[in-house]
Amino acid sequence: MSKFWSPMAKRATTYVPGEQLNKPNILKLNTNENPYGPSPKVLAAIQKANDDDLRLYPSPTVEHLKEVIANRHGVKANNVFVGNGSDDVLAMAFMAFFDSENTIRFPEITYSFYPVYANLFNIPNEQISLNEDFTIQPEDFYNSDGGVIFANPNAPTSLYLPIEAVESIVKNNPDSVVIVDEAYIDFASTSAVSLIEKYDNLLVIQTMSKSHSLAGLRVGLAIGNEELIEGLIRIKDSFNPYPIDRLAIAGATASFEDENYFQDVTSKIIKTREWTTKSLKEIGFHVLPSATNFLFISHTEASAKDIYEQLREKDILIRYFDAEKIDNHLRISIGTQEEMEKFVEEMVLILNN
Amino acid sequence: MSKFWSPMAKRATTYVPGEQLNKPNILKLNTNENPYGPSPKVLAAIQKANDDDLRLYPSPTVEHLKEVIANRHGVKANNVFVGNGSDDVLAMAFMAFFDSENTIRFPEITYSFYPVYANLFNIPNEQISLNEDFTIQPEDFYNSDGGVIFANPNAPTSLYLPIEAVESIVKNNPDSVVIVDEAYIDFASTSAVSLIEKYDNLLVIQTMSKSHSLAGLRVGLAIGNEELIEGLIRIKDSFNPYPIDRLAIAGATASFEDENYFQDVTSKIIKTREWTTKSLKEIGFHVLPSATNFLFISHTEASAKDIYEQLREKDILIRYFDAEKIDNHLRISIGTQEEMEKFVEEMVLILNN
Repeated sequence: MSKFWSPMAKRATTYVPGEQLNKPNILKLNTNENPYGPSPKVLAAIQKANDDDLRLYPSPTVEHLKEVIANRHGVKANNVFVGNGSDDVLAMAFMAFFDSENTIRFPEITYSFYPVYANLFNIPNEQISLNEDFTIQPEDFYNSDGGVIFANPNAPTSLYLPIEAVESIVKNNPDSVVIVDEAYIDFASTSAVSLIEKYDNLLVIQTMSKSHSLAGLRVGLAIGNEELIEGLIRIKDSFNPYPIDRLAIAGATASFEDENYFQDVTSKIIKTREWTTKSLKEIGFHVLPSATNFLFISHTEASAKDIYEQLREKDILIRYFDAEKIDNHLRISIGTQEEMEKFVEEMVLILNN
Repeated sequence: MSKFWSPMAKRATTYVPGEQLNKPNILKLNTNENPYGPSPKVLAAIQKANDDDLRLYPSPTVEHLKEVIANRHGVKANNVFVGNGSDDVLAMAFMAFFDSENTIRFPEITYSFYPVYANLFNIPNEQISLNEDFTIQPEDFYNSDGGVIFANPNAPTSLYLPIEAVESIVKNNPDSVVIVDEAYIDFASTSAVSLIEKYDNLLVIQTMSKSHSLAGLRVGLAIGNEELIEGLIRIKDSFNPYPIDRLAIAGATASFEDENYFQDVTSKIIKTREWTTKSLKEIGFHVLPSATNFLFISHTEASAKDIYEQLREKDILIRYFDAEKIDNHLRISIGTQEEMEKFVEEMVLILNN
């Protein structure tokens, strides 16, 4: 700890970057990236924007991109906020809607960044236990003092909470903001975006890092009532008015405009996910019903940590969490069909060993 | 004000975006952008990175880019922090080194974002008057309770504070952080980077938006003692671990590697700045000695606001500040030689009108 650090810097959580193996031919199934590249139209749009105009500031309001996103979701441009990846949007949402006087709630097992934000901004929080089967108990989130945040589908469990249950949580918190983090919603079913007209306290956050194959471009978004969006804009404009660069604006816009490519890629991943689920069940794994681009699995006779380590020796990276209640589970990102066939083959070998 | 906004969102300053005229052939001398595009090597590097790998997360630590910047500045990679534009770096520096218990100081006339950050993060602040000639009085910044931030060269005054005076401020604040915001240093002379080995409380912030012709790419940086850089990294990793996208990493790296192009462009702008200064003086303007890519000027017989409005009607945009003490001054970004010749011609016509 340095004497020059603020109390905020002192309490900030130290970050451990994700595992990277510096070898060729790694099968990387550990960070839920999309195995398919972005739409060729995205690459073309970026190439077109890659010119001398990079000397000029980008649009601080990204109006055109917001309109394209609004069209895609059947909302208005002033219901849309765009940030530098969904982590940036989440951080600004914590700043805009939560505070140090009121306790917020989020699931005990969920995206690991929520406690990090709560800690950074000194927001008191209750971490609510999940049911034994890792499902969320909606009633546990009713009438929260300071607000609610949860991921749907949840991570790393991969489980989707039906829209009726999401609505009940939103409805039963009329005086505080409910943030639904839908990073994986495009691999699931109904988005809570359908509820924003009805509830002024609902903020839905999405990302282009997973279903849009653009983790490398850093674009995330929030959709909600105009007043909530204005709250986010106030924070953004007081922090960094131009967070999305000209190339990211061009690429993100083109990606939302190419709905066919997006649907093709998403369908392929869902199909491979179902095949992988079935194949892993056949060799004795318990596989939670995934509504994401990853699986959360366990095996009664084999240790998760052992499997993780054996796969690692074969240059296959998956995610193992050394954390209470999930330390006998593994999270596996869905790759291409070919990659998952190779993965299942290796799993068979490991189990027979 | 929405009932859902946090105290932070409520006190956030409402942002007024810079003036944009939606017409062709505008001469845009109002936002201090570089009139020359980035190095062709930057465009080539971006094109090379514009591929299917956009599906993958960028490096959260941007190690290679930090090494290239470190080489350029004769420091080590762990003396370098990279953010999403220098506004992002400034915001994180306010979070990492200033707090709500200790009063910071900055000049009364300076980059307009410092009071915005102080307000957002509830940091008490003293805004110190400049001398009559707009110069900074170094002693006024000695022994600050909570820290110091100032721009050098200062904006919108364009004045450079000699390195000895900068050092005296750093030296006389041994227990708090002094941030020197060097957005325009490449058009001036000695950077305070030369002092970071000697002073552990000095943080220097720079940007690629001006001298590197990359306002559209959003890359800013900080250079300082390893402990200060670690403080910034702690905040960044608790906020948004991947703020720089793959294309920005590629472009920024190539720009720092092409020193010749950078020197050529910077020299051209300085030459045009000197020509413009001389020409404006010849027609009766008072021009502050600029160490930036803009001029801060006034005229005893003509109103700044009138000149601004007349230029605007001729599709020439410059910056007028409707603020106490500077409301008879104008800020003019340096364009190409040709653009500045046109600008001076129009100024002559306006004065003779």
